[in-house]
Amino acid sequence: MSKNWVNETLYDAWQQRFRVDKELVHKKSEYQDIQIIENEFYGRVLLLDGVTQISEKDEFVYQEMLTHVPLFIHGHAKRVLIIGAGDGGVLRRVLQHPEVEKATMVEIDGEVVALAKQFMPDISGACWDDPRAELIIGDGIQYVVDAPSESFDVIIVDSTDPIGVGEVLFTDEFYKNSARILTKNGLIVNQCGVPFMQADELRETSLRRSKFFDYVSAYVAAVPTYVGGFMTLGIAGKGQNKIYQTVEVIKERAVKANLLNKTRYWSPEVQLAAFALPPYISEQLPENK
Amino acid sequence: MSKNWVNETLYDAWQQRFRVDKELVHKKSEYQDIQIIENEFYGRVLLLDGVTQISEKDEFVYQEMLTHVPLFIHGHAKRVLIIGAGDGGVLRRVLQHPEVEKATMVEIDGEVVALAKQFMPDISGACWDDPRAELIIGDGIQYVVDAPSESFDVIIVDSTDPIGVGEVLFTDEFYKNSARILTKNGLIVNQCGVPFMQADELRETSLRRSKFFDYVSAYVAAVPTYVGGFMTLGIAGKGQNKIYQTVEVIKERAVKANLLNKTRYWSPEVQLAAFALPPYISEQLPENK
Repeated sequence: MSKNWVNETLYDAWQQRFRVDKELVHKKSEYQDIQIIENEFYGRVLLLDGVTQISEKDEFVYQEMLTHVPLFIHGHAKRVLIIGAGDGGVLRRVLQHPEVEKATMVEIDGEVVALAKQFMPDISGACWDDPRAELIIGDGIQYVVDAPSESFDVIIVDSTDPIGVGEVLFTDEFYKNSARILTKNGLIVNQCGVPFMQADELRETSLRRSKFFDYVSAYVAAVPTYVGGFMTLGIAGKGQNKIYQTVEVIKERAVKANLLNKTRYWSPEVQLAAFALPPYISEQLPENK
Repeated sequence: MSKNWVNETLYDAWQQRFRVDKELVHKKSEYQDIQIIENEFYGRVLLLDGVTQISEKDEFVYQEMLTHVPLFIHGHAKRVLIIGAGDGGVLRRVLQHPEVEKATMVEIDGEVVALAKQFMPDISGACWDDPRAELIIGDGIQYVVDAPSESFDVIIVDSTDPIGVGEVLFTDEFYKNSARILTKNGLIVNQCGVPFMQADELRETSLRRSKFFDYVSAYVAAVPTYVGGFMTLGIAGKGQNKIYQTVEVIKERAVKANLLNKTRYWSPEVQLAAFALPPYISEQLPENK
């Protein structure tokens, strides 16, 4: 075989594979195997421990939905905590919201940040230089233990799946402290995998979150490289459930943030539609059992 | 390599691959290469000319959305024409609607029907024996030329992509005759590919359809094995655009059809949400250019 492919190793009986037009980096950090390849269709693609994390071509789907949905539900988040997301794409979108005064990003693996800066600079843009951004190379689970109570309005968890280094971000301990450090109408969003392939992930983390938050739900996004139909983003919060803001309220907030008609996947209508869960997904949520 | 995989050949730089736990059939019909394999995760999987058509595990997503959405928009479709869909899954869902008096299915490749009956009987269930079902092994494009005007309420086109045998189902000629044979509030649905991977398919077929129908739109479904984010289903019709029926109307029709809470992807809310197109998709539609 003259062509070289990288086969994703997430599942036993099914794989996606990218043609490797150029391998830009392949090394082991203290925490994981890091690989960045160049692919004609997807552009540069980052894999951690053999699992696709982000590609230049489709990153907008995941990042827009992980960021804009919780920030527009909250409506006036001043302090945002991001855990993981070493590529900087979530941080960049968080900083597009003018009401955000401080965005703290805690990523355990400094190598991921450094390599993403070097090889995928378009994903983060100029976000690292924004005076509102704080980057901490450290352990997210320890960070939420140490952080003062009620110190964040929104927490965004952009973790790997609950295997390997990301596993602790799916525990009772983590959710308990997340609830403690959120302000009274605060909310947390975390990726819950692709339920068609990994139904346990959504079910178990939703159950865990329901112990510590006033409401627990999930919404969906169709991310090209997170294959298997919809991926789910879990959402949980304190106080009154304001997930179903009207489309008018969300539109108004988007206009204020100068984000209306500036996004490629997210829109006010897509935000509301994302909470219409197919039954095979909604049955994984505790309130629907 | 001791394990055998089948690599989908739809795209140049990216592939999905299924582990072949058993190859059940692999033969050339008059029209195409037909392969059915057994896979631990997806069950039995049908590939035509190397492209995934259906799997036992995820067929419900595509079939429910291709069938229930147009039938519940129409509300009282008596005569339904299905083109393609040799596995019988669409026919089975069409016949779940009690108001349907006759469902005519025209599939060009009798081998697909025969092999699906033999190796994937659960997908079609008992639909072939329903007295309302008529199976014609023949050419869909010729069928719509010959059919009398205003003879169908809904046309469902479950074709392959516009390459090979399915190509003629994406032509002016086909859409023109489809419009002619539809009743005055009739509508047509056809698969328009995965726009993230194949944006031209949605754009070009939408433009073509807009020449012959009063309204043209599209809706989305996240089908696990049609990889690359959302697939789009194009919808076009004669008369007044009733795509956005209220959720109450759709619910009422679903109750009458005894389909409420009986489906795994489709629901009244999911039906409406499916028309909230991400901007990267809606910009492919003619009215949004």
